[in-house]
Amino acid sequence: MAHAVSPLAPTSFPDMQAIGGVRIAAGLTGMRYKNRDDIVMFAFDKGTSVAGVFTLNKMPGMPVDWCRKYVGKGKARALVVNAGNANVFTGKQGRDACAATAKAAAKALGCKAEEIMLASTGVIGLIPQADLLAKAVADLGGRLGTADWTRAARAIMTTDTFAKAATTTAKIGGKKVRISGICKGSGMIMPQMATMLAFVATDAAIDPSVLRKLVREEADTSFNAVTVDGDTSTSDTLLAFATGAAGNKPVKSLTSADGKALRKAFAVVLQDLAIQIARDGEGAQKLVTIDIAGAQSDAAARRIAMSIGNSPLVKTALAAGDANWGRIVAAVGKAGEKADRDKLSVSIGGITIARKGGLVPGYDETPVAKHLSGREVFLKVDLGLGKGKARVWTCDLTHAYIDINADYRS
Amino acid sequence: MAHAVSPLAPTSFPDMQAIGGVRIAAGLTGMRYKNRDDIVMFAFDKGTSVAGVFTLNKMPGMPVDWCRKYVGKGKARALVVNAGNANVFTGKQGRDACAATAKAAAKALGCKAEEIMLASTGVIGLIPQADLLAKAVADLGGRLGTADWTRAARAIMTTDTFAKAATTTAKIGGKKVRISGICKGSGMIMPQMATMLAFVATDAAIDPSVLRKLVREEADTSFNAVTVDGDTSTSDTLLAFATGAAGNKPVKSLTSADGKALRKAFAVVLQDLAIQIARDGEGAQKLVTIDIAGAQSDAAARRIAMSIGNSPLVKTALAAGDANWGRIVAAVGKAGEKADRDKLSVSIGGITIARKGGLVPGYDETPVAKHLSGREVFLKVDLGLGKGKARVWTCDLTHAYIDINADYRS
Repeated sequence: MAHAVSPLAPTSFPDMQAIGGVRIAAGLTGMRYKNRDDIVMFAFDKGTSVAGVFTLNKMPGMPVDWCRKYVGKGKARALVVNAGNANVFTGKQGRDACAATAKAAAKALGCKAEEIMLASTGVIGLIPQADLLAKAVADLGGRLGTADWTRAARAIMTTDTFAKAATTTAKIGGKKVRISGICKGSGMIMPQMATMLAFVATDAAIDPSVLRKLVREEADTSFNAVTVDGDTSTSDTLLAFATGAAGNKPVKSLTSADGKALRKAFAVVLQDLAIQIARDGEGAQKLVTIDIAGAQSDAAARRIAMSIGNSPLVKTALAAGDANWGRIVAAVGKAGEKADRDKLSVSIGGITIARKGGLVPGYDETPVAKHLSGREVFLKVDLGLGKGKARVWTCDLTHAYIDINADYRS
Repeated sequence: MAHAVSPLAPTSFPDMQAIGGVRIAAGLTGMRYKNRDDIVMFAFDKGTSVAGVFTLNKMPGMPVDWCRKYVGKGKARALVVNAGNANVFTGKQGRDACAATAKAAAKALGCKAEEIMLASTGVIGLIPQADLLAKAVADLGGRLGTADWTRAARAIMTTDTFAKAATTTAKIGGKKVRISGICKGSGMIMPQMATMLAFVATDAAIDPSVLRKLVREEADTSFNAVTVDGDTSTSDTLLAFATGAAGNKPVKSLTSADGKALRKAFAVVLQDLAIQIARDGEGAQKLVTIDIAGAQSDAAARRIAMSIGNSPLVKTALAAGDANWGRIVAAVGKAGEKADRDKLSVSIGGITIARKGGLVPGYDETPVAKHLSGREVFLKVDLGLGKGKARVWTCDLTHAYIDINADYRS
């Protein structure tokens, strides 16, 4: 069942520049969907660096197992992603499907199977059909062409209501480099040290060890700072590929001027993609930004932000535009982090509501209610204890979340 | 706004026996509600033992602070509970309201204010009116009579759709003793080491130190094993009072025959009350029992059970009667406890669906779908790792949860 496009969707798909060294093709496996692409293949030129971070869920999908095994080599020639069947909890048949997919891609490109990265998203527990996957990949291998990012982003959607992409450029070692990425994700979203499916490619030359550090660190303030429903997926995957086609001298350190420029550009793309996931949170009507300050540590701030961002009571109140700030206080208190009721302050839309354990004298709810009636909501909590801070993005909890998740499998 | 009575409500209110040494009166403060009782006072005869456990939320309500300060003395003469205003995050005015309420009750009974226990439930952040509370308590003090438990249970309701009570008897030291309790709770339910509001009284004579141990331990397998929405309240309180009117020799150890009989009887009442909270979970259409076995420890089993019980994806699938067992697997994996995909088995309604990392060969969903169409759902997960086990009760997540929480404050 198709659901209406999120009212929080960006107004247009970004103008995705071609990335030297990247070719793409999308197609249909026939496994589950009938009238849409459900598989995409990215081919990378020889010498492309790869790095990835993956779900901390203890029931990882088979493609996650596969990538974990081979991503450490730091080089990749292709990425194959399919949607509709997550290939999770599928035993030997699932493992075989991964091997068959990688083998077909390796054959098409004349490389080793271990140079192929894999990702899948969709229903958990369905056995994937290895023959259909291999057949589709062989077909894609013959049709690789200039990057059609829109089609690629569409091919990996499940309950997503819009295709998600972001792009930027940077000057690295005197050369202009491009960084483009796509992602998918709408429900089962509380990435832990990783994300839903997100794929980023750049034509910059980046040492694999540098790319690894970059991806790990920037995931924390982008994908790992988003929650829709507190449910960490079994398939969370962020993979970044650097082809080197831009001709810059390979970046070997993140503390160099080039490293800093690269980090900045990656942050732009990853945060943009991550926020698009919150904007497409299942049933979302409001994008919610939660800022925590004054916590004992950044980690404590993050857990407090997630406690608010995952509170069904906070999220249903926001859906109703109700300035029920007491629920924010309760969510801070249940986070398990140090908190002192009498030092806490809470603001919504920049308006301080409560300070030092009580309501601000003469508090007028009118402007807060007006802020809450909009599409973008800003919550801020200051613990008044230390210097820890964190920012997290989420969405409200509406009837549509229940509708979407009642009929997803059928 | 009143919501329809939960379809999971017990068919009748239990026949609550009078407890010697307990008198009750209920009434109206006029603070918030107009046409219903919102305050209840329990008076206890001299010599009554008291013990309690309270929320681990770091933003505790003022009545929780009050009880924590005085409950350790082990003796109490009264309990005053009001509904509609939780007296949380209310600063000095909130503290003063507690003192005024206790003072009024102490005056009516001729005892010290520190012998009065207090509890409040309702909206967070509203300043309570100390004068209205004190006036209502003075009135109740003059009307104390034989226990009307039904009226008391009704007076403490907020979004509850039915009044919750349980009762049992036991033979202690040759004497028949009675144990009766009431509770309230429907949303903001994931008690941590405590509960929503629950009050239990017995005419057994029990040493305060024994009562304390009993309450702490039995809370773990009753109220602490219930979740509706993962939101730990600021006001969770379980208080137990033992008047000694039954004339038994005071119970001084839980390992004696009397101690064991007492524990068994307390377990009956506390579990009954706790399950009634799950049955009245906001918007609940199904009662869900989650059994975990084979975990590394009981604590790990409990966290895994809670991860399933708090997963919006599991709960929306259950609401739709969808046997989406993959979401159970994902919830196990995100719990952060040791788990091995290839040793895990999952059953619903006694039917094994997945075993050792994959679907059971020839799995037929028909009987599982039939089980899920009923009012009571049983999920079981065996980790296959150790001897840890836990049982948790929850409910499904329906549209009504969102409706109830969108309009609660207004």
